[in-house]
Amino acid sequence: MTFAVTLPVRFADCDPAGIAYFPRLLALVDAAIEDWTAATLGIDRRAFHLDRRLGLPTVSLETRFRAPARLGDRLRLTVAVEAIGHSSIRLAVTADVAGTTCLETRLVQVLTDLDSMQSRPWPAAWRAALDRHLPETVP
Amino acid sequence: MTFAVTLPVRFADCDPAGIAYFPRLLALVDAAIEDWTAATLGIDRRAFHLDRRLGLPTVSLETRFRAPARLGDRLRLTVAVEAIGHSSIRLAVTADVAGTTCLETRLVQVLTDLDSMQSRPWPAAWRAALDRHLPETVP
Amino acid sequence: MTFAVTLPVRFADCDPAGIAYFPRLLALVDAAIEDWTAATLGIDRRAFHLDRRLGLPTVSLETRFRAPARLGDRLRLTVAVEAIGHSSIRLAVTADVAGTTCLETRLVQVLTDLDSMQSRPWPAAWRAALDRHLPETVP
Amino acid sequence: MTFAVTLPVRFADCDPAGIAYFPRLLALVDAAIEDWTAATLGIDRRAFHLDRRLGLPTVSLETRFRAPARLGDRLRLTVAVEAIGHSSIRLAVTADVAGTTCLETRLVQVLTDLDSMQSRPWPAAWRAALDRHLPETVP
Repeated sequence: MTFAVTLPVRFADCDPAGIAYFPRLLALVDAAIEDWTAATLGIDRRAFHLDRRLGLPTVSLETRFRAPARLGDRLRLTVAVEAIGHSSIRLAVTADVAGTTCLETRLVQVLTDLDSMQSRPWPAAWRAALDRHLPETVP
Repeated sequence: MTFAVTLPVRFADCDPAGIAYFPRLLALVDAAIEDWTAATLGIDRRAFHLDRRLGLPTVSLETRFRAPARLGDRLRLTVAVEAIGHSSIRLAVTADVAGTTCLETRLVQVLTDLDSMQSRPWPAAWRAALDRHLPETVP
Repeated sequence: MTFAVTLPVRFADCDPAGIAYFPRLLALVDAAIEDWTAATLGIDRRAFHLDRRLGLPTVSLETRFRAPARLGDRLRLTVAVEAIGHSSIRLAVTADVAGTTCLETRLVQVLTDLDSMQSRPWPAAWRAALDRHLPETVP
Repeated sequence: MTFAVTLPVRFADCDPAGIAYFPRLLALVDAAIEDWTAATLGIDRRAFHLDRRLGLPTVSLETRFRAPARLGDRLRLTVAVEAIGHSSIRLAVTADVAGTTCLETRLVQVLTDLDSMQSRPWPAAWRAALDRHLPETVP
C-alpha cells in the first residue's frame, strides 16, 4: 500500500553547488504528500484547505540525507503510513534516484482547523481510508 | 556563545493557511546558519562556495515545530554549536517569536569538497574558531 | 520620496550558475514592496491580508535584468510610485549592488478584495498617503 | 511548432490569499522553458549548465497576469519561439487553466558562458534546431 510519484529535480531546486537545496527537497517531499493525500482521502487540497478550512501542519520532521540529488534527476518519492493517531498521522517518505536512496524522512502531521488552529479528530471516512494504508506492525 | 539573527516572516514564506510554510521556515533556519558561518569562520559564503569550492550539506535534520509562525512575525533565530567532528558539525537552531518557541531543530552538516563531493577535515583555523563555540558539556 | 531597503542575496536565492535566480530576485523585489507598503500605508501585511482581506496582486510586470546579482551581494532596492489609479498603483523598483544596477522593474498592482477577487477603490486615507509619494510629472 | 507542458499549482506555490504567488508562477514558466530547452536542443540542463558551463539568463521579462491561478489548478504552459538573435532568443510563454489565460509573458534569454559571464553565439546545431521553431512572420 505504498504510494509513489516521480518529480524532476529542477533548476529552481538546485543551489550554487549544483545539487538540490535541502529545503527545496523537503518541498518536493511535501508535494508527494500533497498527491498522496488527494489519492488517499479522495479530496483535493483546494477543497481541503479553502472550503473545509483544514490544514495538515507538520509538527515533527526527521530526515537523513543519504546522497545528493542533482539537477535533472528523476526523484521517485514513496509515501507510506506508519501510524495514525486521533488527529495525527506519521508518514515515512523516501526519495530515490535510479535505485539510490537520496533521503529518508518521517513526518508527523496533525489535522488542524485553520480558523481556530486547534487539532481535529479524523472524520470517520478519512480514518477508514487511512487505516487501509496502515502496516501490519507499527515500526 | 550563542549567535542570534532576526528575520521577518514574509508574504513569500506563507502558505494558503496564512502561516509560514515549513520548507520556507527551514530556509530561514539555513539563512541564520549562513550568517552564523560567516561570523564564526570569518569567510563569506561566496568565497566559501565559489572560490574555495566547499559546501556544508545537511546530512541530518530533526525539527519540532512547536507553534506556527505567522505573516509579519519577527523570527528570532539562535544558532548554537552542540558538537564538532573531524569534518562535521552539529548545530541547534531555535526560532522564537516574542519569546514563544516556534521551532527547535538540530542539523548535522559536513564540510564537503564540491568537486569530489567528499568530506574534508576542518582546516585548523576554522576548527579553532568552532571550538570556541563548543558548550562545556556535550548535549 | 524614494523608499529603500537592503536585502542580502542568500544561498537560497542562487542557482547552479552561482547567480541569483530570476524568480527569487522578483521575490526580493516583492519583499521590498512589502516593506514599502507597510511604511507608506501604515498597515502591516498581516492586518492587510488576513484581517482586512485585501490583496495587491501584480497584474503587469516589466523587468530588465542588467547585471547578475551574486551570492552574498547586498542588494539595495528602491521603490518609487509612478502613477496611482482608482484602485491600482504603478511602482518602479530598482535593485543595485554597490552602485551597479542589477535590475529595473515596473509593476502594476491592483487593490483587491480577496473574498470576491474584485478590485476595490483605494480608501481615502491610503490614497492621500500614496499621493504624497507621486512624482511631479508622470513618467 | 508549439511546445506544451502541464504542471500543477501546488500548495508550495500559493500565498496567504490562496492563489499562486507571482514569483512562483514565473518559476513554473521557467520550468516549462527548462523542459522546452531539453526537447528542442536535445541537451538536458545538467549537461548544459554543469558540463558545458552554459547558461540562459533572462535579460528581459514582460508579463501580464490576466487571471489568478489557484491551488490545485492544472496549469497548461505553452512555449513558442518569437525571434532568434546571434546569441539570444525571445520566447512567448502562456499559461492557461481549462482554457482561461492566467498569464502571458515574453522573455529574452541570452546564451552565456558561465565562467566568463559573456554571451556566446548559438552553436550551429542548436541554431538550426531553433530555426525550425521560428514562426513565418516575426511578431
